[in-house]
Amino acid sequence: MSSPLVVSLGSRSYPIHIGPGLLSSSLIPEGAGSRKVALITNTTLLGPYGTPLVRSLEEAGLTVETVALPDGEAHKTLDTLNLIYDALLTASLDRRSCLIALGGGVIGDMVGFAAATYQRGIPFIQIPTTLLAQVDSSVGGKTAVNHPKGKNMIGAFHQPRAVFADTDTLKTLPDREFTAGLAEVIKYALIRDPDFLRWLEDNMAALRSRDAGALTHAIRESCRNKSEVVARDEFETGERALLNLGHSFGHAIEGALGFGTWLHGEAVGVGMLMAALLSQELGHLASSDVSRIARLLRAAGLPMKLPDIPVDNLLPYMAVDKKNEGGRFRLILLRAPGAAYIEDAVSRDHLRSFLAGAPPSLASLASPA
Amino acid sequence: MSSPLVVSLGSRSYPIHIGPGLLSSSLIPEGAGSRKVALITNTTLLGPYGTPLVRSLEEAGLTVETVALPDGEAHKTLDTLNLIYDALLTASLDRRSCLIALGGGVIGDMVGFAAATYQRGIPFIQIPTTLLAQVDSSVGGKTAVNHPKGKNMIGAFHQPRAVFADTDTLKTLPDREFTAGLAEVIKYALIRDPDFLRWLEDNMAALRSRDAGALTHAIRESCRNKSEVVARDEFETGERALLNLGHSFGHAIEGALGFGTWLHGEAVGVGMLMAALLSQELGHLASSDVSRIARLLRAAGLPMKLPDIPVDNLLPYMAVDKKNEGGRFRLILLRAPGAAYIEDAVSRDHLRSFLAGAPPSLASLASPA
Repeated sequence: MSSPLVVSLGSRSYPIHIGPGLLSSSLIPEGAGSRKVALITNTTLLGPYGTPLVRSLEEAGLTVETVALPDGEAHKTLDTLNLIYDALLTASLDRRSCLIALGGGVIGDMVGFAAATYQRGIPFIQIPTTLLAQVDSSVGGKTAVNHPKGKNMIGAFHQPRAVFADTDTLKTLPDREFTAGLAEVIKYALIRDPDFLRWLEDNMAALRSRDAGALTHAIRESCRNKSEVVARDEFETGERALLNLGHSFGHAIEGALGFGTWLHGEAVGVGMLMAALLSQELGHLASSDVSRIARLLRAAGLPMKLPDIPVDNLLPYMAVDKKNEGGRFRLILLRAPGAAYIEDAVSRDHLRSFLAGAPPSLASLASPA
Repeated sequence: MSSPLVVSLGSRSYPIHIGPGLLSSSLIPEGAGSRKVALITNTTLLGPYGTPLVRSLEEAGLTVETVALPDGEAHKTLDTLNLIYDALLTASLDRRSCLIALGGGVIGDMVGFAAATYQRGIPFIQIPTTLLAQVDSSVGGKTAVNHPKGKNMIGAFHQPRAVFADTDTLKTLPDREFTAGLAEVIKYALIRDPDFLRWLEDNMAALRSRDAGALTHAIRESCRNKSEVVARDEFETGERALLNLGHSFGHAIEGALGFGTWLHGEAVGVGMLMAALLSQELGHLASSDVSRIARLLRAAGLPMKLPDIPVDNLLPYMAVDKKNEGGRFRLILLRAPGAAYIEDAVSRDHLRSFLAGAPPSLASLASPA
């Protein structure tokens, strides 16, 4: 097994282990660093991954409280969070106990927020089981739940003690979820890594066939890019905002459709294409750059069509986006494929007319160069 | 006006302003440091203090969203917290907005937690209107809501941007609440300040008559002691736990009776006397020391009687106390009046028999030396 990546955050630094066979290794009980843990997962994952993990933790001498939450983004709420608090208090977990999040981004975000706030903060480790969670939500310490008025509106910065990305768990991931995860992989390349962008263009077929070597490389490069950005700007006062490429448009699509209709990565994929189109309109990208990005997104199997939503339903979700400060829209756009920047000068009227003018089908953008 | 106390926490340092007339001064709009603020108070305080404050903030050019919550500890819940999130999202408050907590400890703790978690953390300022909040809960960055299974079980560390303790607001404070606040004032003296203890013994009558000079001195000495402890141990990994003198017993009383039956300070007062009795049993305090402490608590007008609760109802609340780590009880006891320490060696059986043997009335302890 190769050595872990390390997210460098001083006293809050932590390792990201990537590879096959991690779930049954001794690294997880060692990484928990606590005799008493709560394993929190969802009802879907409990059987295939939860139960064997509990057994191996108990064999390592740990006391394990197991909590299985309802599955799905619709349950990423304060009410579900309260189920976690209830279980932790009933089991008398104290400040030295460690939470273990086993699941996708919904579980990771909620368990992370529970760990951030239970008794004012206890440790937790992340075991992401989806591609999206392995390359994005499990790394960087952002935790949150949704609110009916906006996604991830209630949360905290709370770094995990360790992350374990077991590529074996991706074997059973439904195609649609796997594809959605590729959107975030592509995002890192578009933001800051032209070499990785070319690698993805050359290896998308291998990735989609879930080739272990290709997956391990893509996850590692994604986490490396993300952790370098996070290490420089843990609390998103500047550069970290770049990681939200595609997310302002994406969140608005998710919110206007009702959270859970589109997968997060699907919305981010279309969101990145919208960001590319707006970057072209502002004179930063050539139409050949937009086509190149569209081709890669199409090769990944991501949606190439805007959902049928009136502009006036999208705008309010962009207005409450956390990236907006002082009433201005704050968008992440592209200066070039592989170089994102923060754009502060787009007015509400401009954004409205851009959205109103966007073609319903984006597939034609992906025509051969 | 004298210069403010400063809580020294590096980049999170902040001033505590103490004195009369602060509510109508220009210090508050300057301290908010934001053009858009939400003033969060309760329905009782809205008329006398909230409305004039909103006017003075608006006159200073700020945009103010006002939120009035139901009054009382029974409402310090996740559900009430959600009312705050709703209001902030409806008013499109962003990350640069500032929350203003106007009220007692319940408002301060809840608004602080809302600020810690809204969009993963925004600034807030504290305007405590009770003696308890002015000397304790508004200083130090502990924020929380209660859970049916335990007090302050859900929370975060989040430092305010500034604290304004206007002594004028104490003029209308009900006697019972004022007296409860004196328990926390006495606490600082008992923990680490023998000089302040003697000052309190000499000036309790002046304090109870709400003499402005005596109040200002007592609040300043309390905040100075607290901020010195917090500056050395912001996240309660050691010394800060001393600030919980009387709180393990106190929280158990509050929890077993149902939160809101006794005031927090009343429970802490009896809790400190229980801590003194246990300290005596362990050989640290002479009976004359216990009597001296009992006399001061009686002089302050605090309850001198244990509530009629079976020991088995108290113990579970002590078991989930945040100060317990690794399954042991962790109590704050006294080596001397003015010198608290952390006691780790009291077993469950010992604590049970101590509680079972405690006299229902503690008044006799306060007999003249």
